[in-house]
Amino acid sequence: MAKRIGKRTLALESRPGVLAYASVVGGKEGAGPLKKGFDEVSLDSYFGQDTWEKAEMTMLTHCLDRCAQKSGGLRPDAILGGDLLNQCVSSAFAVKDRSTPYLGLYGACSTMAEGLSLAALLLDGGGFTSLMAFTGSHFCAAERQYRFPLEYGGQRTPTSQWTVTGAGAVLLARESGAFELTHVTPGRVLDAGVTDANNMGAAMAPAACDTILRHFDDTGRDFSDYDAVFTGDLGAIGHDILQDMLQKEGLDPGLKYMDCGVLMYDLLTQDVHAGGSGCGCSAAVLAAHILPAMERGVWKRVLFAGTGALMSPLSCQQGCSIPGVCHAAAIERGARA
Amino acid sequence: MAKRIGKRTLALESRPGVLAYASVVGGKEGAGPLKKGFDEVSLDSYFGQDTWEKAEMTMLTHCLDRCAQKSGGLRPDAILGGDLLNQCVSSAFAVKDRSTPYLGLYGACSTMAEGLSLAALLLDGGGFTSLMAFTGSHFCAAERQYRFPLEYGGQRTPTSQWTVTGAGAVLLARESGAFELTHVTPGRVLDAGVTDANNMGAAMAPAACDTILRHFDDTGRDFSDYDAVFTGDLGAIGHDILQDMLQKEGLDPGLKYMDCGVLMYDLLTQDVHAGGSGCGCSAAVLAAHILPAMERGVWKRVLFAGTGALMSPLSCQQGCSIPGVCHAAAIERGARA
Repeated sequence: MAKRIGKRTLALESRPGVLAYASVVGGKEGAGPLKKGFDEVSLDSYFGQDTWEKAEMTMLTHCLDRCAQKSGGLRPDAILGGDLLNQCVSSAFAVKDRSTPYLGLYGACSTMAEGLSLAALLLDGGGFTSLMAFTGSHFCAAERQYRFPLEYGGQRTPTSQWTVTGAGAVLLARESGAFELTHVTPGRVLDAGVTDANNMGAAMAPAACDTILRHFDDTGRDFSDYDAVFTGDLGAIGHDILQDMLQKEGLDPGLKYMDCGVLMYDLLTQDVHAGGSGCGCSAAVLAAHILPAMERGVWKRVLFAGTGALMSPLSCQQGCSIPGVCHAAAIERGARA
Repeated sequence: MAKRIGKRTLALESRPGVLAYASVVGGKEGAGPLKKGFDEVSLDSYFGQDTWEKAEMTMLTHCLDRCAQKSGGLRPDAILGGDLLNQCVSSAFAVKDRSTPYLGLYGACSTMAEGLSLAALLLDGGGFTSLMAFTGSHFCAAERQYRFPLEYGGQRTPTSQWTVTGAGAVLLARESGAFELTHVTPGRVLDAGVTDANNMGAAMAPAACDTILRHFDDTGRDFSDYDAVFTGDLGAIGHDILQDMLQKEGLDPGLKYMDCGVLMYDLLTQDVHAGGSGCGCSAAVLAAHILPAMERGVWKRVLFAGTGALMSPLSCQQGCSIPGVCHAAAIERGARA
């Protein structure tokens, strides 16, 4: 049974654990600093398909299959996931030939954190024995949907981020697995009034700050209680904004605070401007970097704070601002490791 | 604690209950057979805004506010919802000025059933004391996003359905409320190979059949155990297809099986072809017809089986078929009534 502590955080009594995880990425991601961690790198950006949207579906399918394989073929009771494409079609098509129930999510780039949090809560509540959370994004599909077709050759602004071609999947189970989900802090939607769709980091930083502060307040913890705190995909600019915001609140993140969008690429040489973004960013970094490092004993306790910008080209074109959301899950290498 | 019974159904030990519900619709819906049940009917299809997308956001905001009012101002621990617009922006904007955590869903027209099911499971798992599930859709916003701009004056095919301009919200709480959620059967994604985006009923009927049969098998129940069984928005054609499929499985629904898309409009006079559809269809019918009738004692035990077609214009244009999903929740007027 989950128990509420403080205003918004839920402590998970059964500490659902990670049984398996997998990541699949494209060539650019596979050439980045995390290259050793991915389960599959496709140098073909089409993943053998004839459109980028079908490529995204195929990439998600591979990722689900690899995660299932790594668990020894365990079939989860349900799959939770979503993506950035209109009406989340790539996720729907990735799950359609599995006879496993599917609960579709939309959390923009916070989808992995949302799925992980919901899966952990549902497992803790009994009834389910294992659940899989997954998500992903594809640079070329996202560019033509959100911005311009690649053929247009539009110039990118310095604050813009590079949508990660990548997917991540995590299989969770009740009372087993080396990494235990101990706390979940669901996020509220905050609107800082940012209207520049090429500056997502600034739009999401206030939501990240709100959820991290709430989590610390509710649990009585601070940065000293965590070995590392990760935000989803604020990028270099959003990372620095959040760092400033946290310092103004009297917190000193030191080197413990990192952002998945900064970790995914070499920002000096890979021409991604402010860093990585997209559902696949934090999902692939979780599965290729964070969990493997926890497995090696590098970190014992981690806060995974996925961030999402809740916008569409249409809302931006109609002059709406870009609200952000951030869901946080505390992961611990526990007694079962 | 939830308990799994059979292959896929979860029995909810704490029987989370409905504390309040509300619906807001447009003029066409307000002139239909369910006109007496809606909390708000807007004769202005713009809901005072300058675009239909902002109208949808405003309609959802009104619906959330009315549901909160009807509960006596109770603030839920979190809100679960989603919609049909690209990147679910209308839901995100409807929740953004509430300081309540938000878990975004994408279940297409099954969103209300998905939200209701997840909320009930999360409440049953402890931690949360009350949760709100909501969704909605707007005919004009959906037409220009999925099909043609209204100004184009496109002809609609006889199998096509009319996207409901409407929203519904339900507030659930742990161990209170007159209507108790007793069972949840999450659905899997089934692809019958239908490629006609103007025949959603045919695309979704197999998923509805699968989930209803699974629910009956898991619980040992059949139509005789329910006073009424509702599908989300199969419309007249999908309703008849499902009726046939159920009869082939040896089940006799009699007059107990109804579809929200058929109930929403007068199919003979309101020029909606095969009936209503959209996230708002089953959500508004639940809040304006099903729950009020249960409150009056017309039905004691109901199965609410929300159906969704998992497609986008893009997936259809790329020749993909239209998979369907159906989530079912059993609602009972219980001992707390």
